[in-house]
Amino acid sequence: MKNPIYSAIAAVTMDGKIATHARQFTNWTSKEDKDFLHKLLDRSDVVVVGHNTYKTAKKPLDKRNCIVMTRSVSKIVQKNSKLVFLNPTRENLDKFIRRMGYRRVAILGGAQTYTYFLEKNLIDEIYLTIEPLVFGRGMSMFESAKVLRRYFKLVSVKRLNKKGSLVVHYKA
Amino acid sequence: MKNPIYSAIAAVTMDGKIATHARQFTNWTSKEDKDFLHKLLDRSDVVVVGHNTYKTAKKPLDKRNCIVMTRSVSKIVQKNSKLVFLNPTRENLDKFIRRMGYRRVAILGGAQTYTYFLEKNLIDEIYLTIEPLVFGRGMSMFESAKVLRRYFKLVSVKRLNKKGSLVVHYKA
Repeated sequence: MKNPIYSAIAAVTMDGKIATHARQFTNWTSKEDKDFLHKLLDRSDVVVVGHNTYKTAKKPLDKRNCIVMTRSVSKIVQKNSKLVFLNPTRENLDKFIRRMGYRRVAILGGAQTYTYFLEKNLIDEIYLTIEPLVFGRGMSMFESAKVLRRYFKLVSVKRLNKKGSLVVHYKA
Repeated sequence: MKNPIYSAIAAVTMDGKIATHARQFTNWTSKEDKDFLHKLLDRSDVVVVGHNTYKTAKKPLDKRNCIVMTRSVSKIVQKNSKLVFLNPTRENLDKFIRRMGYRRVAILGGAQTYTYFLEKNLIDEIYLTIEPLVFGRGMSMFESAKVLRRYFKLVSVKRLNKKGSLVVHYKA
C-alpha cells in the first residue's frame, strides 16, 4: 500500500504569522487564496485540523472527510460519516490514516496541529500562501518545544493576484 | 531635500524566524543571499543595526557607514568616521539621518530594530530572503507590543539558487 502524502497548507503574513491570536477566524486572506485552498482540498482525501480551527471553520469543513485532533475524546470518536475526533496523545494518527486508506492528507492547522506533524517528521510538502501584510506580532505556524532544522526544497512560486499574494510550494 | 528611503532587509526561515535565539550569528543563510545582501548594502548610504546585531557582525560592517541603535549611550556618540551609536529613546533617528543627508538606509535588524521602524511607520520597502528551512520556534522579525496591520505590495520575486532561496521584494 502506498504511503499517505501529508500536505501542510497555511496562509501567513510576511512576518510569518497565521493569526493575531488563537481562535481568530482567518478574515485577512485574499479571495484568490481561498479559491486556491478549495482546489487543494478538492484534491485531498481528508482534512486534519485542531479543535480550535475546527470550531472556526465547521461550516466549510462539513462536506469533507475531516479528522479533528483533540484531547476532548479518549481515543477515536466517529461523530458522523465524515467526521472523526481523534486524541493524538492516545492514538497514532498516521496509523489511523493508513487504516482508512487515505492517500492525500491536508493539514490545515492551527499551530499545535502543524507542530505535531513537524515534530513527528511527517510533513511531505508545504503550501504557504504569503499575504502582503505584516501583523507585527501573533501566532507562528509552528510552536515546537525545541529548535528543529528541517530542510525543504522549493517546488514552485505562484503569484495569485495584483497585490502580490504568493503561493510558495515546498517539498521535504 | 528628498526623503530617505528605509529598506528593511531580512533573511527568514519558511516559518518566519530570523534566528533561533537572540545574539545568534546568522550561519544558516545561503551564500547567494549573502552575495545579494552585499549588493544591496553597496547601494546603501548607511546601515542601521541594533547593538546585538552589531556585535555579531562588527567585522563585515566596519567598512560601511553604520548607525548602532542602543540605550548604552545618552544621545549620539560618534565612535569613528563611519560609526555612530544613537539612543533612539533620546534622539530622533529619522531627523539624524536627514541631517546627515543619507538617502538610502538599510535596516539589518534584529527584531527590536525592525520593530522600531515598523511601529514608527517608516519602512518604505522590505527585502525578505526566505530560506527553505523551518526552525519550529525562534525569533520573529517583528515583536511589536500591539498587533498592527501594515499592508505592502509585492514588487518582485527572485529565486537565488537551486534549493530555492527566494528574495521577495515589497513596497509600502
